[in-house]
Amino acid sequence: MADSIDFYFEFSSPYGYFASCKIEDLAAKHGRAVDWRPMLLGAAMKITGAKPLVDLDELRQPYFERDFQRCAGYYGLPFTLPESMPMNGVAAVRAYYWLKERDADLAKRFAQAVYARFFGAGRDVSAPEAVADVAAGLGEDREAVLAALQDQAVKDAARAATDAAIAAGVFGSPFVIVDGERFWGADRLDQVDRWLETGGW
Amino acid sequence: MADSIDFYFEFSSPYGYFASCKIEDLAAKHGRAVDWRPMLLGAAMKITGAKPLVDLDELRQPYFERDFQRCAGYYGLPFTLPESMPMNGVAAVRAYYWLKERDADLAKRFAQAVYARFFGAGRDVSAPEAVADVAAGLGEDREAVLAALQDQAVKDAARAATDAAIAAGVFGSPFVIVDGERFWGADRLDQVDRWLETGGW
Repeated sequence: MADSIDFYFEFSSPYGYFASCKIEDLAAKHGRAVDWRPMLLGAAMKITGAKPLVDLDELRQPYFERDFQRCAGYYGLPFTLPESMPMNGVAAVRAYYWLKERDADLAKRFAQAVYARFFGAGRDVSAPEAVADVAAGLGEDREAVLAALQDQAVKDAARAATDAAIAAGVFGSPFVIVDGERFWGADRLDQVDRWLETGGW
Repeated sequence: MADSIDFYFEFSSPYGYFASCKIEDLAAKHGRAVDWRPMLLGAAMKITGAKPLVDLDELRQPYFERDFQRCAGYYGLPFTLPESMPMNGVAAVRAYYWLKERDADLAKRFAQAVYARFFGAGRDVSAPEAVADVAAGLGEDREAVLAALQDQAVKDAARAATDAAIAAGVFGSPFVIVDGERFWGADRLDQVDRWLETGGW
């Protein structure tokens, strides 16, 4: 089987959410697995100067709020713009990599559940307690999750994941890397599809 | 016939160039005409704080230069990254609206010729003389073009076009407005296509 493709995303990113709902089917169509790699965009934004899409100027702000809704409809996905945008993804990223250490598939389902709760239902998932609730919904022990979120090794692993993403050139969400080729944006999935089909052009 | 769709773009924008090669066929498929509206993004950038795509940080700069080439291949279009990026579009925008006053179709062919020269062949079109050369290639008198570029009424018309674009919410290139619905980016043409088909969702 060919190498897995890398799927980088930030939990607070609507376009990351849209891509998360599409990437598995897209990869499977070409016989590829997907390595989900949530990260914190804040670190990249210190380099690029970019700002969260809900904290913009009077020209872009209304556009993006409309575009989120329109893209959700275009992709056929449930979407609620959370009042708590941008969410703080630190706890969710930590829980993800803690789970992934044990079970990558479980971690993936956790990430999907975080997105479903945040952008599907519009409910905040910033707090450790909310993250523990999501994990509990997948059968994890709430107290064990809350303890893990305070574990220095878990914190370090989450930070290392963001550092590795930036080292790989990731500066936005979603970011898909296929055999070294980098694609930014849910609106590049069509190109990812063709790249997987043809090996490039 | 339904209202024409508005196609806003900046001559220095690769994604505007890609869209310019696609928008007429897309609109015609749905029985629509296209009103081409070149503008100067600099005025919008004063509001958004955005910078030219060739004047970015070490994370985004290499990505965009690669993405320009990859998108050109994806769309099947000739592309040369001009050494003179970003170009100064002032003279081209002035010439466009001066020509449009007399003949909208001629102005459109002029805009296409500017893009073909800049992004197709990689040759700068910032200077009034280069703009006059492009117009001359369409049968215009070079001296008349050069004189028009200095005409205060022509300058005012070009400035008014940029002001009108910003008033319509345009902050990037390309921007397509269909019956009041705004779409930013060459990567939104798929959604424009469906919107024209369905009237929205």
